[in-house]
Amino acid sequence: MIIVKKIVFVRHGQSEWNLANKFTGWTDVDLSEQGIKEAEAAGEILEKEGFTFDLAFTSYLKRATKTLNIILDIMDLHWIPVIKSWKLNERHYGDLQGLNKAEMTEKVGEEQVHIWRRSFDTPPPALDADDSRHPKNESKYDELSEAELPDSESLKMTIKRVMPFWEKTIVPKIKEGRKIIISAHGNSLRALVKHLDNISDEEISSLNIPTGRPLVYEFDEEMNVLDSYYLGDQEEIDAEMQKVKDQAKS
Amino acid sequence: MIIVKKIVFVRHGQSEWNLANKFTGWTDVDLSEQGIKEAEAAGEILEKEGFTFDLAFTSYLKRATKTLNIILDIMDLHWIPVIKSWKLNERHYGDLQGLNKAEMTEKVGEEQVHIWRRSFDTPPPALDADDSRHPKNESKYDELSEAELPDSESLKMTIKRVMPFWEKTIVPKIKEGRKIIISAHGNSLRALVKHLDNISDEEISSLNIPTGRPLVYEFDEEMNVLDSYYLGDQEEIDAEMQKVKDQAKS
Repeated sequence: MIIVKKIVFVRHGQSEWNLANKFTGWTDVDLSEQGIKEAEAAGEILEKEGFTFDLAFTSYLKRATKTLNIILDIMDLHWIPVIKSWKLNERHYGDLQGLNKAEMTEKVGEEQVHIWRRSFDTPPPALDADDSRHPKNESKYDELSEAELPDSESLKMTIKRVMPFWEKTIVPKIKEGRKIIISAHGNSLRALVKHLDNISDEEISSLNIPTGRPLVYEFDEEMNVLDSYYLGDQEEIDAEMQKVKDQAKS
Repeated sequence: MIIVKKIVFVRHGQSEWNLANKFTGWTDVDLSEQGIKEAEAAGEILEKEGFTFDLAFTSYLKRATKTLNIILDIMDLHWIPVIKSWKLNERHYGDLQGLNKAEMTEKVGEEQVHIWRRSFDTPPPALDADDSRHPKNESKYDELSEAELPDSESLKMTIKRVMPFWEKTIVPKIKEGRKIIISAHGNSLRALVKHLDNISDEEISSLNIPTGRPLVYEFDEEMNVLDSYYLGDQEEIDAEMQKVKDQAKS
């Protein structure tokens, strides 16, 4: 008999800057009202579907930690250990952080914005070292070495920090049988899904992850993926994935 | 020059059962509306007074974890590590959990209720092993050995589990220079204050800790207490301490 191991990923609920259609990256914006509702709905469907957790992971960004806190509160799992790591942060959006996606499309064209958003290995324009938005100015990143501190990241660069954390810190816990939820971000989750589903560098550009929808992966003992699916109304989820894709339309 | 090390304790904000004047113990009740406001005020005064933290401790009970989450959100410290332990839980109130303090006073007399509330070494009546309220029925206490699982606790018994956690887990982190906040409960904090201020078994019965008020302790390098004080309006705090004392009045 195969013992199936499960893990649940969830992209944070809608943030204030998802709502304002801005490039966010490492900017530490809060959940919007709708984002709070999405997180509550995620907790409710996980509970309804009989999920439980004994370990959680999240990023250093409040839209992910709050989404997790809301889910754990609803599931009465406020007491489980939570491991926070900057390695699960959103992709760093460099100098684009704070700019409106549709406005940028008008300015530089749809193709350029698509490259910034979905190119596998072209990072957006870098933040200047003396830019006040640079992560070296935030105490929460004091632990990072100079080489680790990003001033902009492509998906490829994001993968390079997410995957070692997955392999060394998360996978051993899955193998131990821990029941895990990970609350993270569009691109840190795309990095994981790319790996798990063996998606090519080209194909990953069309994969979009909706906010606040629990995404379940099932593994066998050797961490081969047996199945993966979103919890909730599949038509709604498909529409939300299309919406993420359309954000850059001016 | 003495390098002063500081730690901040906070008793959770008012809970629904503080409000209903019930014995709570390990019953996992939520914060009241006022409790949420108290937690917010605690975060605001800590920020205003220039405190910051890089490590937090709390219990397995949601009134303490939520108080902490609210404080960390307000201080923009949602990303710091949080260590949760049942050893910081409130004193287990045995068979009294869920009963109204004033009603019990009418029933059994003020003296008996005072003994249950403030006796150093007399535990309240124990929960039956087959009582649905027994912690062995809650998955969050699965990790406890049979000897550790309480069916009722005196303050003395509470001290016996709180102090090793303080000595082995918290003190080494203070010595390392970590900036720590502990969100806990009336009696787990009384246990710590008794130790830190060298209060006798008799005198501790008259010490009451108000909800949601940051309590600062300052130590020298050898963990000798240099000073301790509540943040906030001292007259208000004195009145709140008197109120905790008066809860059993019928």
